[in-house]
Amino acid sequence: MDKPSIKIGILGLGTVGSGVVEVLNKNGSDIEKKVGRKIEIKDILVRDISKKRKTEVPQHLLTTNPDDILENPEIDIVVEVMGTIDLARQYILKAFENKKSVVTANKDLIALHGKELFEAAEKAGRDLLFEASVAGGIPIIRPLKECLSGNRFTRIMGIINGTTNYILTKMSRDKMEFDDALAEAQRLGYAEADPASDIEGLDAARKIAILASIAFNSRVTYEDVYVEGITKINSYDIRYAEELGYAVKLLGIAKEADGELDVRVHPVFIPKSHALAAVSDEFNAIFVEGDAVGEAMFYGKGAGKLPTASAVVGDIISAARNLSFGMPGRVGCTCFYSKKIKPIQEIESKYYLRLLVEDRPGVLASIAGVFGNSNVSIASVIQKRIEKDMAEIVLVTHTVKEANLRDALKIIEGLTIVGNIGNVIRVEGSDT
Amino acid sequence: MDKPSIKIGILGLGTVGSGVVEVLNKNGSDIEKKVGRKIEIKDILVRDISKKRKTEVPQHLLTTNPDDILENPEIDIVVEVMGTIDLARQYILKAFENKKSVVTANKDLIALHGKELFEAAEKAGRDLLFEASVAGGIPIIRPLKECLSGNRFTRIMGIINGTTNYILTKMSRDKMEFDDALAEAQRLGYAEADPASDIEGLDAARKIAILASIAFNSRVTYEDVYVEGITKINSYDIRYAEELGYAVKLLGIAKEADGELDVRVHPVFIPKSHALAAVSDEFNAIFVEGDAVGEAMFYGKGAGKLPTASAVVGDIISAARNLSFGMPGRVGCTCFYSKKIKPIQEIESKYYLRLLVEDRPGVLASIAGVFGNSNVSIASVIQKRIEKDMAEIVLVTHTVKEANLRDALKIIEGLTIVGNIGNVIRVEGSDT
Repeated sequence: MDKPSIKIGILGLGTVGSGVVEVLNKNGSDIEKKVGRKIEIKDILVRDISKKRKTEVPQHLLTTNPDDILENPEIDIVVEVMGTIDLARQYILKAFENKKSVVTANKDLIALHGKELFEAAEKAGRDLLFEASVAGGIPIIRPLKECLSGNRFTRIMGIINGTTNYILTKMSRDKMEFDDALAEAQRLGYAEADPASDIEGLDAARKIAILASIAFNSRVTYEDVYVEGITKINSYDIRYAEELGYAVKLLGIAKEADGELDVRVHPVFIPKSHALAAVSDEFNAIFVEGDAVGEAMFYGKGAGKLPTASAVVGDIISAARNLSFGMPGRVGCTCFYSKKIKPIQEIESKYYLRLLVEDRPGVLASIAGVFGNSNVSIASVIQKRIEKDMAEIVLVTHTVKEANLRDALKIIEGLTIVGNIGNVIRVEGSDT
Repeated sequence: MDKPSIKIGILGLGTVGSGVVEVLNKNGSDIEKKVGRKIEIKDILVRDISKKRKTEVPQHLLTTNPDDILENPEIDIVVEVMGTIDLARQYILKAFENKKSVVTANKDLIALHGKELFEAAEKAGRDLLFEASVAGGIPIIRPLKECLSGNRFTRIMGIINGTTNYILTKMSRDKMEFDDALAEAQRLGYAEADPASDIEGLDAARKIAILASIAFNSRVTYEDVYVEGITKINSYDIRYAEELGYAVKLLGIAKEADGELDVRVHPVFIPKSHALAAVSDEFNAIFVEGDAVGEAMFYGKGAGKLPTASAVVGDIISAARNLSFGMPGRVGCTCFYSKKIKPIQEIESKYYLRLLVEDRPGVLASIAGVFGNSNVSIASVIQKRIEKDMAEIVLVTHTVKEANLRDALKIIEGLTIVGNIGNVIRVEGSDT
């Protein structure tokens, strides 16, 4: 192999950065054969050169000056694994100005500034690759942009946050309450000290924005996504889900109907027979529906040092092949439409509802009457006496408009026979 | 879009060919935006121009002369969806001679003549893409060659034959016997009138040969694969699997250890907790283990008109992008090693064994003694009296060398206390 090596600069040497260095070191000779050229790490941007590190890196590769990478004419590919939004954005834009291809694992950045970055990439005629930004090691972005690109997609549903899937698995399998499951996730390092971004659904919202943009060829940003987290799910909901034949999962969902997009993150009841229902613990999976492929699912670890590095290195190899063939920018931005985002009130769904009501004759009839007046049709009801004078009613609706359900709930909340509305959870993935 | 269109010629207008035409017609305007150039069907090779067809195709596109496609300088990409081996090989070689990129769905051809075809593609500097040859619509070849190409793979296990998965699902879920399940699969069109290629494992063998070649960067052909079908599985095996916590699946398996490959197709017991165990009916799934990504799985429909067309059209788009950028041949053959194939006697596995023996004291001790002498260590035993004087013993071994197990079975078969060896099935996917 006498061709010159492809030289990369890495911004950041945290968990993912160290993983990238390890994978390139370990599998470098095979990667060289696959690409036809050696991939050589030229510089790594760190905050503190003297810091002790677990991954062995020759000292002379480390720098604290980003321009050693961004302005270095020798460097072909910039690998951004430092996180942050503003600084990363600024560095990546500079990399494109200097005609470098860019690989990033930064979902926050892509979900927020994707448009600007893709335009800069296109202007530079270089690649912007970001497979690692969604679901870590699971190949999903390239499959959507290439393998499945002959499809018109109708739906994407993903378990794209490992922390919440771990918590929900614990609540269901080990009958834990939310707080205890969260505490255990924190103890095991699956949840951060400040878990808000995970449990409130914000992390999943960034990822579904990215997936929706690719699948529906229309830019969806973080702000476009309707979000509910899992903090209101309790053991009653888990138990009723079980009884009704469902699993409880936090899903990122994106659908297209009549040219409008419906993009959201919230807990769902999903039938146990659905492929996503069996995805447990910290695993992720993305379920895709296309008009040609039908149903397909991609499953694996959505986070972690080496799984994420796997995706980053796959992108480095792809960018290197493109440079080798003199054709970077081969697959650019594919958001050539500008589709309207449907407000949550306009979506249609089935719903699971749990209500605490007075336990006396006629109560169910009153409630059913309110739903009927709002055009909310009920598919099934379980009524259970739980304590003296009060009963819990669990309802599952047919597919109805969310606005109609909300209208009905406002009236039901005001009824004197109703103690409280325990929870309302959308039902997804069933056929009717 | 003023760039000239990319022109394709399609060899064959059977099920898959019609699907390709339908998908290109239906989603053509989006595909044009994604590629930046229109994809235009120029000619389609058929056997009988006057035949009535379900898919509407303008009469002037049809030809019975392959050279209208292979020798037509206007045509950029040849799409081979006609099947057969010799004729397809000859046409594809001619297409490369005439500097055309080739997309094929022909697993028999790739599994048998892959090497020759890749060399011809490389010589021509053109693409040979074959995503549809394994697991229909499921993206697996491009993910292995690109997204996951930073990994060193340790194992691939796939449910890659829908017919046998349907039959095994029926046997397990509906307690059917093999013959009845096969008859039902034939009635529903999941199995062919002559089902040998599916139920004997030959179809799966071709697919695992292709996957192993890609994952381990070493050419594996159909002849290298050790094959057992599912015809010997009966309801006893299914019932014992259930009792022991396993599902029965026909898997294509490829592993690398110490630089040697172990490639085989046979029924397995796989723990119910394994992701593959839940893959039911006619669905396919491919489970991959890499040193960076860890475990990943790809799930979907492995056959059918539109799922297969989805993969073919994805490849057409990829080939078109490469031509557009003036870089066909971007990812060529990656079999740069020549690894030894391990004979089946040398593999290591756990085994499930079902033996009919005399029901009297000391029998189990004798059998256990034979296994012990052959270094076969037993993990668990279930003994059941089934009729007067005869009992069924079900054993699961620890991981042992296949040669040792075969030695032991030869001796056990000759013992007067043993009625017969009911079945021997390998156990896969468990940790210990």
